[in-house]
Amino acid sequence: MTCEIIAVGTELLLGDTVNTNAAFLAQQLALLGFSVLRQSVIGDNEQRLLGEIKAALSRSDIIITSGGLGPTPDDITKPVSAKAMGIELIKDEESEKRIIDYFKSRGLEMPESNLKQALLPSKLDGAIFKNENGTAPGCAFIKDNKIIINLPGPPRELKPMFLKEVLPLLKKYSSGVILSHSIRLYGIGESMMAQRVEDLLSGENPTVAPYAKDGEALLRVTARASSESEATERLKPVTAEILKRLGDLVYGIDCSSLQEKVVELLRQKGKKLGLAESCTAGYIAKRITEIPGSSEVFDCGIVSYANEIKQRLLEVPHEMIEENGVVSEQVAIAMAKGALKISGADIALGVTGIAGPDPSEGGKPAGLSYIALADKDGGVWSRKFATGKGGAENREYNRYVTASNALDMVRRYLEGLEI
Amino acid sequence: MTCEIIAVGTELLLGDTVNTNAAFLAQQLALLGFSVLRQSVIGDNEQRLLGEIKAALSRSDIIITSGGLGPTPDDITKPVSAKAMGIELIKDEESEKRIIDYFKSRGLEMPESNLKQALLPSKLDGAIFKNENGTAPGCAFIKDNKIIINLPGPPRELKPMFLKEVLPLLKKYSSGVILSHSIRLYGIGESMMAQRVEDLLSGENPTVAPYAKDGEALLRVTARASSESEATERLKPVTAEILKRLGDLVYGIDCSSLQEKVVELLRQKGKKLGLAESCTAGYIAKRITEIPGSSEVFDCGIVSYANEIKQRLLEVPHEMIEENGVVSEQVAIAMAKGALKISGADIALGVTGIAGPDPSEGGKPAGLSYIALADKDGGVWSRKFATGKGGAENREYNRYVTASNALDMVRRYLEGLEI
Repeated sequence: MTCEIIAVGTELLLGDTVNTNAAFLAQQLALLGFSVLRQSVIGDNEQRLLGEIKAALSRSDIIITSGGLGPTPDDITKPVSAKAMGIELIKDEESEKRIIDYFKSRGLEMPESNLKQALLPSKLDGAIFKNENGTAPGCAFIKDNKIIINLPGPPRELKPMFLKEVLPLLKKYSSGVILSHSIRLYGIGESMMAQRVEDLLSGENPTVAPYAKDGEALLRVTARASSESEATERLKPVTAEILKRLGDLVYGIDCSSLQEKVVELLRQKGKKLGLAESCTAGYIAKRITEIPGSSEVFDCGIVSYANEIKQRLLEVPHEMIEENGVVSEQVAIAMAKGALKISGADIALGVTGIAGPDPSEGGKPAGLSYIALADKDGGVWSRKFATGKGGAENREYNRYVTASNALDMVRRYLEGLEI
Repeated sequence: MTCEIIAVGTELLLGDTVNTNAAFLAQQLALLGFSVLRQSVIGDNEQRLLGEIKAALSRSDIIITSGGLGPTPDDITKPVSAKAMGIELIKDEESEKRIIDYFKSRGLEMPESNLKQALLPSKLDGAIFKNENGTAPGCAFIKDNKIIINLPGPPRELKPMFLKEVLPLLKKYSSGVILSHSIRLYGIGESMMAQRVEDLLSGENPTVAPYAKDGEALLRVTARASSESEATERLKPVTAEILKRLGDLVYGIDCSSLQEKVVELLRQKGKKLGLAESCTAGYIAKRITEIPGSSEVFDCGIVSYANEIKQRLLEVPHEMIEENGVVSEQVAIAMAKGALKISGADIALGVTGIAGPDPSEGGKPAGLSYIALADKDGGVWSRKFATGKGGAENREYNRYVTASNALDMVRRYLEGLEI
């Protein structure tokens, strides 16, 4: 099957929004074994959108649109899709009820215009996709071996709708299976990782592709086969070979993040984590608690942004800060010990550094941090970490990768690896 | 002038790369007063690319391409652009020298294929753009009042090349200026906001467009004019009218986030904020400290995920939790008071709720939270907040918008508004 992705919205043409939906949809379609021929972005202009949809229908089997399903007059994707397909929109009672309930459950008054979102193709002409994260339902128009799928623009509405509601429909048109593993690594750069598996990168089935993202490296191994079990078999030897070569730099396979791995390990070992954060200032706590059920392994974090709080709450000695500076190994260790005491946890992290974008007054560079881990048995480990020349001016990046480095330290501790 | 942006690359069609170049270029072109009619992504396929470029030339004045300037056989953007324009590529000595030097300075051997990157239009047929961050020069083909600009794909090559080399060329064709204001609102939905300014949405200059993002609403007011001062004048009355109608729901104009506004207000008033977070668990601290200089207004946050920590550190009475449940107004207020005491700040927030995706054991729904604000003068305010049915299963969303609601409470307190 051939596909095209059309994003609708003047905000995209003005560059106010980055079209992340296109990449998400393209990846999903590739997994189904469909070829994406083209992606495009069109403004909220009826004539241009109709022209684009008609041209796409003449070239491809499946057209997926994102955006333009809202309640305002410039939301035109559904009527234009209906027109292009020669299908009528009718009121869907169930969707209307969902929209009314959506407002009621929030104690909000519903503007009349929102009811336009319940105008949809009949089930004979296609399908309706529920929106669990907003008011706009999605829908499919199906006719003459062509499919148009309309999805809402906000990624947090589009993604779950695609995965829950659209995927089962599209799977009917997919011949063959594509399966892949994401092998996630911390502590090695993309090019060094690629070098170690260079001979595997030219494989055709499975393919092995290296990626880098936010201070981590990732290998994606993808196999095509006629059945799921055949694809699984194809993945096995290559995945095993990669694990053999990259060893404990791999923190997870098909695991979504370092924090997911850390929460999983803490649970397995029955241990709790405490936190004392300065430069990351809540970022580690936020990432840990992204994981549902993290309350089993995390009770308490202290965001000690000021020196006075480090002293008073975490009992970091004033003289230690005076002597070594607040961004120092000594202070990180004292913070970790303080967090251990105050939280009553089994292990605790202390993190102090320069978030940036500017260097510290004392001339320490942005992106420099000290991270310490202390455990209940008196064990103490520490790392000096620098995000380096490239990231130094990027406050968000510095904070994110410093948090990652700290999480990796916990991961290695819990796996009994060298820290 | 009308423009189209064409990204070339199979990696974009596969979804392995997000097309951030398109948003960057679109913003730059809007600032020049050019209208971007369309963006598209085409694979490394000669026929399809030629078709797309010819179609774009028939519709628009300026075509900007990104990608496909590399040394490998699938890099076809330059020859296809040349063909579409009927312009010949010739060897550019200076570019050849730069490419050879690029490899030499890195101590690398140069593959012969890289010399293909020095085949460029002559200066009579267009222009050549130096690449200071890679080997592929960019170029412009200019003929019969049409312009094609070829830029390299990697953003860190494309962006500086555009700003340094392409912008001066395009400015010659710019006959006006586009200026816009982003008016940001908290506490009103997109459709209700749009209803209140409905008559303004059909204006042509300035245009007014409504958006929704992550629980917030936004109006963008955009004016075109021949000079910056004229554009500014055009924006004034419409912006003033919007502020009049939407009042204190507007938290900022051209301000990037609630946390930016809150840090700015805290600085202005010389006040410090303390935090006690349960369900948001560091998310508010993380957002506040995203802002450089936030250390002036924020010293301390307590992430009290466990009840025991709420009792021991924040002095929330055990009986209070027993009687009202930990997700209650009483506990939120006690947490805020505890944070005030422990942080020594002027005002403090206490936040307790159900992050989700599941409801609490006691049956309280995911997305429900109580947020309290306490100040040094004994003032206490609280809000019950529900992200509602739509967001309930989305833990990230629940936490984000609960944090936003809390930040908005601080904003309203500092602005002396009703909370």
